[in-house]
Amino acid sequence: MSTAGQVIRCKAAVAWEAGKPLSIEEVEVAPPQKQEVRIKILFTSLCHTDVYYWECKGYTPLFPRILGHEASGIVESVGEGVTDLQPGDHVLPIFTGECKKCRHCLSEETNNMCDLLRINCDRGVMLADGKTRFSINGKPIYHFVGTSTFSQYTVVHEGQVAKINPTAPLDKVCPISCGICTGFGATVNVAKPRKGQTVAIFGLGAVGLAAEGARVCGASRIIAVDLNPRRFEEAKKFGITEFVNPKDYNKPVQEVIVEMTGGGVDRSVECTGSVQAMISAFECVHDGWGVCVLVGVPKIDDAFKTHPLNLLSERTLKGAFYGNYKPVSDIPNFVNKYMNKELGIDMDKFITHSLPFADINKAFDYMLQGIGLRCLIHLDA
Amino acid sequence: MSTAGQVIRCKAAVAWEAGKPLSIEEVEVAPPQKQEVRIKILFTSLCHTDVYYWECKGYTPLFPRILGHEASGIVESVGEGVTDLQPGDHVLPIFTGECKKCRHCLSEETNNMCDLLRINCDRGVMLADGKTRFSINGKPIYHFVGTSTFSQYTVVHEGQVAKINPTAPLDKVCPISCGICTGFGATVNVAKPRKGQTVAIFGLGAVGLAAEGARVCGASRIIAVDLNPRRFEEAKKFGITEFVNPKDYNKPVQEVIVEMTGGGVDRSVECTGSVQAMISAFECVHDGWGVCVLVGVPKIDDAFKTHPLNLLSERTLKGAFYGNYKPVSDIPNFVNKYMNKELGIDMDKFITHSLPFADINKAFDYMLQGIGLRCLIHLDA
Repeated sequence: MSTAGQVIRCKAAVAWEAGKPLSIEEVEVAPPQKQEVRIKILFTSLCHTDVYYWECKGYTPLFPRILGHEASGIVESVGEGVTDLQPGDHVLPIFTGECKKCRHCLSEETNNMCDLLRINCDRGVMLADGKTRFSINGKPIYHFVGTSTFSQYTVVHEGQVAKINPTAPLDKVCPISCGICTGFGATVNVAKPRKGQTVAIFGLGAVGLAAEGARVCGASRIIAVDLNPRRFEEAKKFGITEFVNPKDYNKPVQEVIVEMTGGGVDRSVECTGSVQAMISAFECVHDGWGVCVLVGVPKIDDAFKTHPLNLLSERTLKGAFYGNYKPVSDIPNFVNKYMNKELGIDMDKFITHSLPFADINKAFDYMLQGIGLRCLIHLDA
Repeated sequence: MSTAGQVIRCKAAVAWEAGKPLSIEEVEVAPPQKQEVRIKILFTSLCHTDVYYWECKGYTPLFPRILGHEASGIVESVGEGVTDLQPGDHVLPIFTGECKKCRHCLSEETNNMCDLLRINCDRGVMLADGKTRFSINGKPIYHFVGTSTFSQYTVVHEGQVAKINPTAPLDKVCPISCGICTGFGATVNVAKPRKGQTVAIFGLGAVGLAAEGARVCGASRIIAVDLNPRRFEEAKKFGITEFVNPKDYNKPVQEVIVEMTGGGVDRSVECTGSVQAMISAFECVHDGWGVCVLVGVPKIDDAFKTHPLNLLSERTLKGAFYGNYKPVSDIPNFVNKYMNKELGIDMDKFITHSLPFADINKAFDYMLQGIGLRCLIHLDA
């Protein structure tokens, strides 16, 4: 029996207040409105951004809320005006979108910061009517970045849905919807190391390790920086050649790297969000040609600070958002490349843990303790 | 009678101490040593960097010194081992050089920050023997950035000498050796605006106006920012379409520009050296694709400061040094393009004043008062 047009009752992990364990509740999920899609989520994984907005330190609280944005699933039904997606399509919901009409989407210069559907962490409602599609006994539950994938069913704007190859394994491609593309694209699309060059990667979470795109580009040395020495062992599988723990030195880590490399690395990619790491990542690139790419999400009151001469000596500093991929246009092809083994990276390594939906709070514990990389949550289990 | 191998006695403008008028003195100029060239300077013009090191605010004083680095002349004699230059060659001495052997000169990524001959404002002696080639009654007079062109004869490392087309008018090409290339190259080689894009230029000195390279690239709007409204009238000749004086607004100039352009300019080029202008130049570029290029020389204790989110929203910040031109390899061709009218800019507009050597201090007055652009000093007059 089709559920299209009906309210669906299903399980969701609701964040009732900042920093308190999520609670699995039965929620009502309204049908998709104009330009919206309702998706049955099969897998979701936890990313730091979920944790930031769950902890809500420095951000305006917006609760109760259903978090989650790294996920994979199948379209259940589509709203009015949706022509590119239909029930049964395998999809990745994405935290940022593509309207294909604004000056960003139409810009000749590659960019993915759509005016309409760009990531918005503060909006808890859908664009069509300013309302939520989630409720419990009629009381609205807020959305998160337009995806809210910690729910067996969710409603997403069609511009935030990548339709992927139906033969792709939905468990393995789940982290492509955020972490993998963010790190891999920052390296391959933005930092663009040349064959034989040296690359420093700050932060060995899934995003930083996806910056193993550097290996795919042919980097000769990949120097990883992390404060957590436990990360080093698992990082070896990702092509990292050297490790630096800033705690082991009594001078700034940028100086350590400049010495290790006789002048600095050719490229660096910052994946922690610590502003001090951002400064180090920039100041450790070689003058004359070095490029530093910032990926990690900073705190709200951070200031990036450096001497302008570090720039004038021909270094480049830039940010990368979602690896510079356009979510709807580029991700289907990214998944195809993965399926055809043309990507050069193996998804299995990123998924270090697996949990049934009921245990979702354990995934938060793993992340807060720096254990593993991605924890895959089975929504149906 | 050849002067090769002899000490030459000639006139030079000597800075005896910080901020005091230069004094025209008779100096002895020793013959060029290994890899050096002695040049008869015919024209020199004043650039802000000369003024900085003459004022010497915040820098280690190094006096007595012969300043000057924007100039043109003719080779008088060459030292041992010099094979690419010979007496009679028309040349531009350049404040930064090219050894053609170091990792910078050999880098596949365009850059011009030679390990050996990169600009060095603190060294007052020649590399070959750590001594000066200038003296007065045997007392050494220090060099400046390896060029010291406020002298009728000077000695320069061959790697800092661009051999140019002998039919090029030495008076008109003089500012190519610093200001023109610095501004023009920062735009054309580094900011690279596309046809129809908008460009903001901070600072309407000769460097900023040479950023009219934006017009040559086909920019649709060129918005100039300067605190000196006197600059606006002469700037109209350079393709500037709009003017903004930050003093006319009670909000940061970056906000003014973002409003004027509905989101920010596509490119900006900062040519003042004020760190506040650098921050404004960066924060006024459009998210998603904007590129800000820093050119102006900062003060020694400046800090460039911005919120990292300004970078993460896919803006790019980079510095340009000497317009990214390689001084020996690229400048001869730059001069040829000028001669063939392929450059798209007219040198005449940059030279607003002309003075005999004896009046060189007037050129300092013009610059300090913000009068005109380049003042050409005739060394033989």
